[in-house]
Amino acid sequence: MSLNTYGHLFRVTTWGESHGPALGATIDGCPPGIPVVAEDLQVWLDKRKPGQNKYTTQRREADEVEILSGVFEGRSTGTPIQLMIRNTDQRSKDYGDIAEKFRPGHADITYWQKYGIRDYRGGGRSSARETAARVAAGGVARAALAELAPGLQVIGYMVGMGEKSIDRSRFDWDEIERNPFWTPDAEAAADWAGYLDGLRKSGSSVGALIEVTVRGCPPGLGAPVYGKLDTDLAAAMMSINAVKGVEIGEGMAAARLTGEANADEISMGPDGPVYSSNHSGGILGGISTGQDIVVRFAVKPTSSILTSRKTITKSGEDTEIITKGRHDPCVGIRAVPVAEAMAAAVVLDHLLLDRGQTGGQRGPIG
Amino acid sequence: MSLNTYGHLFRVTTWGESHGPALGATIDGCPPGIPVVAEDLQVWLDKRKPGQNKYTTQRREADEVEILSGVFEGRSTGTPIQLMIRNTDQRSKDYGDIAEKFRPGHADITYWQKYGIRDYRGGGRSSARETAARVAAGGVARAALAELAPGLQVIGYMVGMGEKSIDRSRFDWDEIERNPFWTPDAEAAADWAGYLDGLRKSGSSVGALIEVTVRGCPPGLGAPVYGKLDTDLAAAMMSINAVKGVEIGEGMAAARLTGEANADEISMGPDGPVYSSNHSGGILGGISTGQDIVVRFAVKPTSSILTSRKTITKSGEDTEIITKGRHDPCVGIRAVPVAEAMAAAVVLDHLLLDRGQTGGQRGPIG
Amino acid sequence: MSLNTYGHLFRVTTWGESHGPALGATIDGCPPGIPVVAEDLQVWLDKRKPGQNKYTTQRREADEVEILSGVFEGRSTGTPIQLMIRNTDQRSKDYGDIAEKFRPGHADITYWQKYGIRDYRGGGRSSARETAARVAAGGVARAALAELAPGLQVIGYMVGMGEKSIDRSRFDWDEIERNPFWTPDAEAAADWAGYLDGLRKSGSSVGALIEVTVRGCPPGLGAPVYGKLDTDLAAAMMSINAVKGVEIGEGMAAARLTGEANADEISMGPDGPVYSSNHSGGILGGISTGQDIVVRFAVKPTSSILTSRKTITKSGEDTEIITKGRHDPCVGIRAVPVAEAMAAAVVLDHLLLDRGQTGGQRGPIG
Amino acid sequence: MSLNTYGHLFRVTTWGESHGPALGATIDGCPPGIPVVAEDLQVWLDKRKPGQNKYTTQRREADEVEILSGVFEGRSTGTPIQLMIRNTDQRSKDYGDIAEKFRPGHADITYWQKYGIRDYRGGGRSSARETAARVAAGGVARAALAELAPGLQVIGYMVGMGEKSIDRSRFDWDEIERNPFWTPDAEAAADWAGYLDGLRKSGSSVGALIEVTVRGCPPGLGAPVYGKLDTDLAAAMMSINAVKGVEIGEGMAAARLTGEANADEISMGPDGPVYSSNHSGGILGGISTGQDIVVRFAVKPTSSILTSRKTITKSGEDTEIITKGRHDPCVGIRAVPVAEAMAAAVVLDHLLLDRGQTGGQRGPIG
Repeated sequence: MSLNTYGHLFRVTTWGESHGPALGATIDGCPPGIPVVAEDLQVWLDKRKPGQNKYTTQRREADEVEILSGVFEGRSTGTPIQLMIRNTDQRSKDYGDIAEKFRPGHADITYWQKYGIRDYRGGGRSSARETAARVAAGGVARAALAELAPGLQVIGYMVGMGEKSIDRSRFDWDEIERNPFWTPDAEAAADWAGYLDGLRKSGSSVGALIEVTVRGCPPGLGAPVYGKLDTDLAAAMMSINAVKGVEIGEGMAAARLTGEANADEISMGPDGPVYSSNHSGGILGGISTGQDIVVRFAVKPTSSILTSRKTITKSGEDTEIITKGRHDPCVGIRAVPVAEAMAAAVVLDHLLLDRGQTGGQRGPIG
Repeated sequence: MSLNTYGHLFRVTTWGESHGPALGATIDGCPPGIPVVAEDLQVWLDKRKPGQNKYTTQRREADEVEILSGVFEGRSTGTPIQLMIRNTDQRSKDYGDIAEKFRPGHADITYWQKYGIRDYRGGGRSSARETAARVAAGGVARAALAELAPGLQVIGYMVGMGEKSIDRSRFDWDEIERNPFWTPDAEAAADWAGYLDGLRKSGSSVGALIEVTVRGCPPGLGAPVYGKLDTDLAAAMMSINAVKGVEIGEGMAAARLTGEANADEISMGPDGPVYSSNHSGGILGGISTGQDIVVRFAVKPTSSILTSRKTITKSGEDTEIITKGRHDPCVGIRAVPVAEAMAAAVVLDHLLLDRGQTGGQRGPIG
Repeated sequence: MSLNTYGHLFRVTTWGESHGPALGATIDGCPPGIPVVAEDLQVWLDKRKPGQNKYTTQRREADEVEILSGVFEGRSTGTPIQLMIRNTDQRSKDYGDIAEKFRPGHADITYWQKYGIRDYRGGGRSSARETAARVAAGGVARAALAELAPGLQVIGYMVGMGEKSIDRSRFDWDEIERNPFWTPDAEAAADWAGYLDGLRKSGSSVGALIEVTVRGCPPGLGAPVYGKLDTDLAAAMMSINAVKGVEIGEGMAAARLTGEANADEISMGPDGPVYSSNHSGGILGGISTGQDIVVRFAVKPTSSILTSRKTITKSGEDTEIITKGRHDPCVGIRAVPVAEAMAAAVVLDHLLLDRGQTGGQRGPIG
Repeated sequence: MSLNTYGHLFRVTTWGESHGPALGATIDGCPPGIPVVAEDLQVWLDKRKPGQNKYTTQRREADEVEILSGVFEGRSTGTPIQLMIRNTDQRSKDYGDIAEKFRPGHADITYWQKYGIRDYRGGGRSSARETAARVAAGGVARAALAELAPGLQVIGYMVGMGEKSIDRSRFDWDEIERNPFWTPDAEAAADWAGYLDGLRKSGSSVGALIEVTVRGCPPGLGAPVYGKLDTDLAAAMMSINAVKGVEIGEGMAAARLTGEANADEISMGPDGPVYSSNHSGGILGGISTGQDIVVRFAVKPTSSILTSRKTITKSGEDTEIITKGRHDPCVGIRAVPVAEAMAAAVVLDHLLLDRGQTGGQRGPIG
């Protein structure tokens, strides 16, 4: 990843600010012949779109994606794909307060210190609106994966919100699409609704725990020692706004285990190696095993809250700030489709890298 | 990061296997005029060196670093620095077992599947010996930081091992160098000695929790949105063998907090902004705030244990394996100097990137 | 350079096809605080714009550039700058012929062979329209250079066209802007007008020789051994459509010289080293000397001519083709502003790289 | 290319100075399973080795390559290959003169200005000895090409030296290996022997014109618009010491042609498209056509001559210098194997890139 680009061969550069005319993603290196259709991308954008229920920001954006290049007669040509999303709801308002004051927990102060200039309108480049471009690009990655690795699925869902957690014994893949939290636990969904509503009404916010599972990923994707699949997945998740921690498989809990408890024993199944467990999260030595790839990350609570916080002005004076506006009580909810998009892009990228280096052949077992 | 390289401008490519003739690091982009002296690098290598106490592998390696290029009269010339470390203790032994069987939890099986060929001797490229090259390169990064950011310190330490954790109320920076676990809690050090000895004698292993603090980092390093300082730190730590999770500041716990609890309030101090707390871990929007940068990560227990585990052979037969050898009961101990090296390299890299783009100037406050 | 991107720190990715809705440039890594104004960029685009005189294609494009991101209140913010140019004159016509037949000398056949799909309308991605995006990006590079290296000038001009060459004894910098060929030799300009008019009327085309001089470039930009300033300049020029050769300083003629004849002797002037000549073209060992940087390149004649040529169809049948359309008798003319733009981007990129690695300090002489 | 690295997927970083302990190449991204054997690499190194006849420098170097990593049981493992060549003939001598004076036409002055420090012994990093590492890496690229594109040949040869040129009507592929100039024209070889001997005795030097032909390259390698095959070949050649110009196919002469004269007409042959000529040099729109790829470049005369030249000292005083030593009267001779190595690396790199993006499939014709 460099400044505003991610990916080695499937390279995505996102651009655009919250309150500029548009934002988008420039995709270079997409395989040719992939069906890339605006309507299909829109499905994913709609999933992330703000204002869909009372738990996400009330900003109203159509988030309609336009394909400006790289697609001919519905298929990718192998040349750069430009995806543009117009900003439509840049509500006219007085930005005076956030133009002069730094919001605690925001990038306001660090952008200012680094660049000496800052588009403060709605957070500018640091706004979560940037993630719309990721989702659009992720849609292209999914379309390519559908051709190159049929059966591969990328599924994100919430496993925790504030003090609440799912009960994994109730995990139901089909439930994920049925509730506004994209959580696989129906009881948790019901419980969280009241919990988050309370936080929203009090002007507070809360963090979230999100998990992405990649099913059906072939073995052999990734590379030692730095271009590892887990390194790139970790970087992809950490690059999402407000993410403060990333885990693969057992994650931080691996520190607590013994070697015996952590071992994923191997036996021979009808179609190749079978593992007794998946502590590794589907990745060993940076390379996929063929098991489910499991990535988890924590999103911090948005710092835009209705309780006054101490801060300073650009001229160095102590002051206080309340960030009014149309913010999410739990930004983690909308991070679910974003994380799926990032995971899809990373897996596709490694699939291309692998067939570049090895031709996609696998060392035989049995 | 790409395959075996990390860094944007301070670029390090490590090479070498556990049982080949040598391993090393090729460093490109080091600023000129930096004192690079083998003896100084050796200090860091000695810290990571195996066989220093009963808690780490009994392999005996001198780990002597040779500088083959890029240094003239004791100073870097700005051209590639080649650091080579000869392997000296490749104990002659029968590798037949691990040549044919895949060790559960090792990269054996994924390397084989991806490449169809594998240097199985001592784990080959996936061996923790690779990290010696990181430590050598990190020594060069430290030397450059000493010139470019005087006062900046990179300090790693253990905060947990298996079921044990430090008590942060006993945190003592000076204690870190005094015990074999690089832990800042003297009581914990005493306690862990017995705990780990027990595990060692039973042929078991255990995971660890390590933290790195970067003190004195200037504000303004990093970049939105993908080339973030936290993205690169997370990738750097995740690239270390056996790491399964990475946290910045509050880390995974951020998912549990409310916006009020997570806010780092700002006030004006004599030398610039002062923060009431450091939930952010010194990074906002991907850019350093000037506070301590705090990174934490989990190392899984080594899978080389004396308890037999089920596995398969290359020819696809079910079997069992016990990994004998000279392995660490807690590989996390030696990950401390490795993590310091990676953090130093990332911070230096971002310092160079920042002065490339902005000239190192800062937006004024007050 | 990778697929559709050039630059190390000042990174430009161009996108768009000849007959798609739009094309543009995504610029990442621009220093902050640079004045970036559409009107200023338009000056350079107008210089390249087709249809301005009878010597260039009669396609009518407004080539109006829109700034979609990365600029706030007229200055760059340090985040990605998106420059978009709408295609307006995609004349409705029957593309049947070039959809099925490959034009000799065009990328038609190789795009088809590589990608198995091709936007044949107007050449798609291989069209010279792509260079509009380069010119827009070059305008941003010029604006940054004006801040970071005041006095630096990038000047392109034609020194040959078909069998014609300028007489260097008549070289006049002021003449360049006065004639449609951007040539510094007024007599040549007059002569070439008739020559090219004859070629145009006969439906033929001709190649051209273009030179770019960078004046006022500070010493010390560039790097050994691969990231050389001359390597990057050569790549930049070779990346322009239809370019078949690139020279630095003496160029190909250097093969004919003796060491005595080729030496640029050095003496000490009031402001530093002074050279007796400039065979080197301002670059030694990949690094600028402070002399004028001189790059020259050859553009082949466009293969779109009114004489029938033998070719084949996609289905493998022998046939003939005449490429009718609105093509340039000498595409080299419009390559002048394109080459200037590329040179400006390369020099800026190396200026940023240099201050990243060395801080911009110079070893003292005298 | 970045600082000291070339290649996208087959990435080579060379390191080392003329008079340091060793130099070498770190290769990352080599496909696994390729036979990599020191003896095979030595063949190419011996071709470049100095001191083989009176026309090249009399420095005596064994140039023995050691493989330090990335190869197991004679085959590449897919992990980094480290190739090291010890310097053995760093003749002890007084470097005082070149330590203080800048040699005209050398990188002495620009290295000093950029870095403020310089390993002046034998030219340090700017020495042609660096090219030994390229040749070793090129040997690995050839081995990979032999597996992935059987029948592909990379052949370099001299076509001009100073005022002399070959007669293409006498071009004989078999002659190339028979004379010390690697020229395909036996009569030229005889003539040049006397010519160069005269120059050598008078302490002079002369430039050279070298051509590399890649035969049997499949169509479809390369990419628009910046990562073009010709862009990367041009960059590869321009990165070689002393190269001042690069041409593809017609090269600079393309500027002189009309569209009719430059067209390579296409007809259908038994195995696919057949071209009536090869003005394009085997590349259209940045992508290989399947014809011979033809690259030509000019090497300037070495500036190390026995005639005194004016220069300055580090302290800024005017002086004169004669560069004594063991230098080549025509460095271009040894550039032949270097250029072959670079071409092999570029073609392999693009072959890997292509199969990464497209899977190596080709759009069908007929």
